[in-house]
Amino acid sequence: MSRFAGQILGAFIADSRWADITPGLRHDAKRAILNHLGCALGVAKDPAVTTALAVMREFSGPAVATVIGQGAKLDPMAASFVNAIASNLLDYDDTHLATVIHPAAPVAPALFALAEQRGFSGAEVLHAFLLGGEVECRIGNAISPGHYARGWHITSTCGHFGSAAGCAKLLGLSAEQSWHALGIAASQAAGLVENLPTAAKNVGVGNAARHGILAALLAEKGYKAAPAAIEGPLGFARATGDAPDLAAITEGLGTDWEIARNTFKPYPAGIVFHAVIEACLALRDMAGPPERIASVTVAGDALLLARGDRPVANERDARVSIHHSAALGFVRGKAGVADFEMPAVHDPALAAFRAKVSATLDERLPRGATTVTVRLQDGQVLQRQVIAPRGSLEHPMSDADLEAKFHDNAGIAGFADRAAPAIAAAWALDAAPDVTRLMTALA
Amino acid sequence: MSRFAGQILGAFIADSRWADITPGLRHDAKRAILNHLGCALGVAKDPAVTTALAVMREFSGPAVATVIGQGAKLDPMAASFVNAIASNLLDYDDTHLATVIHPAAPVAPALFALAEQRGFSGAEVLHAFLLGGEVECRIGNAISPGHYARGWHITSTCGHFGSAAGCAKLLGLSAEQSWHALGIAASQAAGLVENLPTAAKNVGVGNAARHGILAALLAEKGYKAAPAAIEGPLGFARATGDAPDLAAITEGLGTDWEIARNTFKPYPAGIVFHAVIEACLALRDMAGPPERIASVTVAGDALLLARGDRPVANERDARVSIHHSAALGFVRGKAGVADFEMPAVHDPALAAFRAKVSATLDERLPRGATTVTVRLQDGQVLQRQVIAPRGSLEHPMSDADLEAKFHDNAGIAGFADRAAPAIAAAWALDAAPDVTRLMTALA
Repeated sequence: MSRFAGQILGAFIADSRWADITPGLRHDAKRAILNHLGCALGVAKDPAVTTALAVMREFSGPAVATVIGQGAKLDPMAASFVNAIASNLLDYDDTHLATVIHPAAPVAPALFALAEQRGFSGAEVLHAFLLGGEVECRIGNAISPGHYARGWHITSTCGHFGSAAGCAKLLGLSAEQSWHALGIAASQAAGLVENLPTAAKNVGVGNAARHGILAALLAEKGYKAAPAAIEGPLGFARATGDAPDLAAITEGLGTDWEIARNTFKPYPAGIVFHAVIEACLALRDMAGPPERIASVTVAGDALLLARGDRPVANERDARVSIHHSAALGFVRGKAGVADFEMPAVHDPALAAFRAKVSATLDERLPRGATTVTVRLQDGQVLQRQVIAPRGSLEHPMSDADLEAKFHDNAGIAGFADRAAPAIAAAWALDAAPDVTRLMTALA
Repeated sequence: MSRFAGQILGAFIADSRWADITPGLRHDAKRAILNHLGCALGVAKDPAVTTALAVMREFSGPAVATVIGQGAKLDPMAASFVNAIASNLLDYDDTHLATVIHPAAPVAPALFALAEQRGFSGAEVLHAFLLGGEVECRIGNAISPGHYARGWHITSTCGHFGSAAGCAKLLGLSAEQSWHALGIAASQAAGLVENLPTAAKNVGVGNAARHGILAALLAEKGYKAAPAAIEGPLGFARATGDAPDLAAITEGLGTDWEIARNTFKPYPAGIVFHAVIEACLALRDMAGPPERIASVTVAGDALLLARGDRPVANERDARVSIHHSAALGFVRGKAGVADFEMPAVHDPALAAFRAKVSATLDERLPRGATTVTVRLQDGQVLQRQVIAPRGSLEHPMSDADLEAKFHDNAGIAGFADRAAPAIAAAWALDAAPDVTRLMTALA
């Protein structure tokens, strides 16, 4: 007899054993957690984060869960709401490229918050994170690309399933309870692409984290959902897009891990601009100071041009601009968080250089690749092609890269001294009896 | 220049004055509140409600808002979550027939909770309720019937806008802030028809209430949403159905009130079964005791037959059964909450009578109408046609009917002594300096 999607996932969640998780996957989980926490720490002073904290403060039960970088605690639902918003705020967090899901933001905050409340171990959190991320990305695969194209912010919607799955594991729910938790998550999943340029985006991501806790707790206490809440005729997948590709949910489940295809960004820019930044950084040494450069031509596929060939008026434009990406490479020789903020947008040197950059279509280039051609004032021509930039699946960021990114993020928020102890605690998480050491370093 | 849907609604919310609300509308609001509170009180002991309370207790800030019939308070978000679930649990609450939205459940709990926290007056709550209900039903009109047909539980989804609109009014948000609150609500709106036969349904309705509070508070503190979060190409309406009929949102706004088309149920059964119950109740006096009856034929339109011509195995079946509706009319002479619960499902007298009932199609009958034909053992034939039963727009329940329904609900939950003071406080709400008297009667 064929089974329901949620039923198969529920059994997967309940039956998975930490002993069967490979060292490689365990390390992947720690990398994702480290990257996630650094991203959240880096924006601790952003008004979008502090506003969410201020609103939630009034509606928080016993304050047992750390709000990253705020010197404050809230109850697990409220804390996970704020931490998820912070992690994903700049889209600088992890990316599952096939779905464009940012896997950690909706899942990890719920798990850490529950772990602080109930004393779960570091290994339990890492295990639950892998299962949550896996469920989230597999459901995402099953409904992509129609789901996002229809207007659904897939990190928010699928994040609900990821958080519910991870919380179900952490709370030790049965296979059937986990199935119901996923079904309850289906009735909560929301978040719109139309709202992405605004703070309303954050609400969907924050809700995903706290709703996963709620779904798991309600299922634990006996709430049930429809058997086919995910794939039924009036269920999540069809309501939010087309019929799901159910094989994408179940094929290779537990052996071919989708969360192992998670990637990390070296630059806080749209992922297709990373090759442009990297090519320009590489050409800078040969080209010399910006005033020696007459023009820069950036070739890319149709998506790169559609997304990135337009004027730069604000930070959001800067993060998806071919011209700004190239200017940072040649003028500043770096592309960190501050290099996409308003002072950089208005920096006369960058503005002048952006005017030297033009974009051109090269349909032979694969997605995310670029060829950058520089003409110097003296007539010399330099060229660099980048197919798979750093941070891609082919060239993943190294552990040292992730540590450096964490240090950068911590420094931005004025927490430079917290970075080393937090990094050490993150790498030691699988052996930690609880998450106190790590959360204390981030408080 | 054409304006955005949310912009028009935001101005409507902010600009509306209590002085301009007619006495008729004010009375409509009190009727809806009375009906809502009674429905919530009646199921206070249901496990679905007490479970929601138990889960939320752990995640509640200062307990200032009454949870109806529980002798408990929670913070406004948590309390509104539980009270919304209770009000809509049996679908015995109010119904906006054109959209099948239950308007009060997602809206009123948020307003009472905020009013208890911040001391708003009864008139302010009634005013906010009318605006919230109006926004909710108008957005519902604009996206019906495609939205529900696609799988969206419209009370949950549109309830988010209703709650946000009401809370925006209560908090005194500006037109622009109210617009953003509606846009934030759009990124939270969820709830699936697939889950309707399960407790997961409750989560969508509960979320609608508490999310409205969250949306309004975030907008008050500066969170913004996309201008066209409701009608944009990747916004709420298109993501959840087809392009909205924007005229349905704005035409006659403030003069032709959609919330004035709210109706109240005399029986806790599907609305199309009300005519069947009423016809059988009327025939009972002529027919005499059930053993005198040989057979009953219920004629109705295709919807009545599609919904209601099937075996009765549980409470949910009973609430949408032609056979059970007819049996209650003839055997019990009443159709209250207990008459649809498991003891009634298994009552041998009702089961035997259900076997005497058959359904037949009569395409000439309008939706919600019926002709019931009774053949007695002695060969005599009796017939009764009901086109617009009590509770319909044409024959609304009287104020006395609503009071009787409140008494019934209060009695079911063991709060018979609370009914009279609660009813008196509800009718006096427009003159009350705060909601304390009413909420105390319901605590």
